[in-house]
Amino acid sequence: MKNLKGRAIFAQSGGPTAVINSSIAGGLIEALKQDAITGVLCSLHGIKGILTENFTDIEKEDLSELYALKNTPASAFGSVRYKLKDWSEDDTDYKRILEVFKKYDIKYFFYNGGNDSMDTCDKVSRFMEKEGYPVNVIGIPKTIDNDLVGTDHCPGFGSAAKYIATTVSEVRLDAIIYESSLVIILEIMGRNAGWLTASAKLAEQTGYGADLIYLPEVPFSIEKFKEDVKRVVDEKRVCVVAVSEGIKTAEGKYVGEDASQTDVFGHSALGGVCGVLKSAVKSIGIKCKAIELNILQRCATHCASKTDVEESFESGRQAVIHAVNGETNKMIAFKRVEGEDYKIECVGLELSSIANAEKMIPQSWITADGTNLTEEFVKYTLPLIQGELDIRRENGLTSYAKLKNIPFKL
Amino acid sequence: MKNLKGRAIFAQSGGPTAVINSSIAGGLIEALKQDAITGVLCSLHGIKGILTENFTDIEKEDLSELYALKNTPASAFGSVRYKLKDWSEDDTDYKRILEVFKKYDIKYFFYNGGNDSMDTCDKVSRFMEKEGYPVNVIGIPKTIDNDLVGTDHCPGFGSAAKYIATTVSEVRLDAIIYESSLVIILEIMGRNAGWLTASAKLAEQTGYGADLIYLPEVPFSIEKFKEDVKRVVDEKRVCVVAVSEGIKTAEGKYVGEDASQTDVFGHSALGGVCGVLKSAVKSIGIKCKAIELNILQRCATHCASKTDVEESFESGRQAVIHAVNGETNKMIAFKRVEGEDYKIECVGLELSSIANAEKMIPQSWITADGTNLTEEFVKYTLPLIQGELDIRRENGLTSYAKLKNIPFKL
Repeated sequence: MKNLKGRAIFAQSGGPTAVINSSIAGGLIEALKQDAITGVLCSLHGIKGILTENFTDIEKEDLSELYALKNTPASAFGSVRYKLKDWSEDDTDYKRILEVFKKYDIKYFFYNGGNDSMDTCDKVSRFMEKEGYPVNVIGIPKTIDNDLVGTDHCPGFGSAAKYIATTVSEVRLDAIIYESSLVIILEIMGRNAGWLTASAKLAEQTGYGADLIYLPEVPFSIEKFKEDVKRVVDEKRVCVVAVSEGIKTAEGKYVGEDASQTDVFGHSALGGVCGVLKSAVKSIGIKCKAIELNILQRCATHCASKTDVEESFESGRQAVIHAVNGETNKMIAFKRVEGEDYKIECVGLELSSIANAEKMIPQSWITADGTNLTEEFVKYTLPLIQGELDIRRENGLTSYAKLKNIPFKL
Repeated sequence: MKNLKGRAIFAQSGGPTAVINSSIAGGLIEALKQDAITGVLCSLHGIKGILTENFTDIEKEDLSELYALKNTPASAFGSVRYKLKDWSEDDTDYKRILEVFKKYDIKYFFYNGGNDSMDTCDKVSRFMEKEGYPVNVIGIPKTIDNDLVGTDHCPGFGSAAKYIATTVSEVRLDAIIYESSLVIILEIMGRNAGWLTASAKLAEQTGYGADLIYLPEVPFSIEKFKEDVKRVVDEKRVCVVAVSEGIKTAEGKYVGEDASQTDVFGHSALGGVCGVLKSAVKSIGIKCKAIELNILQRCATHCASKTDVEESFESGRQAVIHAVNGETNKMIAFKRVEGEDYKIECVGLELSSIANAEKMIPQSWITADGTNLTEEFVKYTLPLIQGELDIRRENGLTSYAKLKNIPFKL
């Protein structure tokens, strides 16, 4: 816990979201204001930009364009999927990072990412401490998956949930126009935690919801699925199904698994669940459309939740404030303030308590038959999708942030 | 051309769009105001509701909910894919329609749909004329495909184009964050005319556009496609491809054809183009994601063009005004008024001049290599995506029209 004076590096990592740029914008704009921070750099492509000294100079950017990051999806400063080894195994990268931190007089390091990024953040922080190099390291969370532990929810989730609820409603309205039976399957992201898929539940608020919701938290049976679908079609003619890409059989095998593909973190590359389910529906003689929401659900800033955007911005801002106040090895987390009205506050959580853990949907929030969510889930999630962004537009389309990306020179 | 007094029937048909309800709302609200119209009925499920006397009474609806149809996607009064035979072949349906028209004193018939619906409209109109039954019949156009002849553009196209351009930009921003090569293929609707796919061109306005656009109007070669993709990836690392579901080889075979499925109009049921192209990209060793926009592109009222919504509303309104003024056997068409600023006026076009014809993109608007559009296309399309709807919301989601759907009783 040190009050330091020097430069700050920000970096983004992991899969993009609709609001990760809002988080970094909050951090960058706050950092520019702080006397303790003598220069603000963004590393390009996450940790890799540090290893290669690939930095842009944020002091050269227009403030209005930094604010426009609020309506710009994905990672404006690039991303990377690069896993730092444990330093006991190989400390080459860590030594290089230390060298760069020294060279650029880096006293603040902010890493904006998900689960794996918080792990990277934790490792860098602990290595610097071990080496006695003074740097305050704060993680700025993002993940549409909402699976980080210790925080009420994750920046990025609310906007993806709003997009999914909106899409479920629009798709249901589209599906019911004919008199014939129809099953629509929406495949939604979420490897192990079903938060995103569960947010299909919110569509009910419009009167046009999903009928069946299949989460990774509940073992999946294709025979029960066929029975569920048949029952809904018999009763309502149209059945809208929200299914997670991560559903698994009772034996723990991913339904959409392609065992030949794994990413660098050793996760199976998923896909194809909606194809498997579509075939199952066709096998019982019912017409079926399958829609994979794919990356659309994580980059739809045009449908972002204002609550999510503003909270993300605030999480970045608070990361800087916490760091300047001498905190390190923390992640900014949201704590929901008790009371009638929804309100959160930002707190600093030990990185080691977060890295590599995953938060699942509580079993008590899942209905007994495993295909729906309770009102407790709705009460938790609904505040997160409130409000719409006042989007800067040009020619009828979003006017994204125009950054100069001027390389930082010592 | 008769000035008639009696009831009006409205019906919707064909695939839904984001704004078809806006069209019918314009018609219904105007019809309620007209003295010549003694009652306003909506037939449920298009022409089929007439055959079965399945009508709702619009006078029982709240005006505010009729206006809320402006932000409600799909066909609020249901749709149908039912093809009327030529009456020379079988006039059973026509005689039944005549009987129902007489029973309910129907003097105005408004049919809100696409190409096939204008054909139905034309047939009914001509049969009634032959039988000497006085009824003014006006078609209210809708189609995201923008392929109706005789009109500058079609209600529904602008909103789908805005959604596609928005999505292309967001997907490109998502795709460029890593340093590795990536091809993203977006499969877009459009059986024979490439207007929707071409609208990916508009994404360029944001600085984040598509690199390659493949239209049904240009014969498709998988070998040239692979060369095109390779060239773009070599130059830009990331390649965003917009491809029509309707692309055909030089021999006229649909690239995504599944010959085993045809709809009742004899069209092949398309699908799978993006799968075919993804395999081709993988075969040249480049990572590829394929996204089928599916029905999302036609029901995304949350991203509708205000210009499109208001024009659609006006087309419904003008249908009623034209009919009350004695016109019949017409479709309301848009004429672009010459001048600096974009402006349209509604005119009545002979239905027989429209039915069963398709408007393609002019070859002169397609670039020489067949993978892009000219500035003339942009000049034509850009005005159609302008403005955003002031959406009625509740709980962070759209508050759709709440209709009572009270059956009409004589």
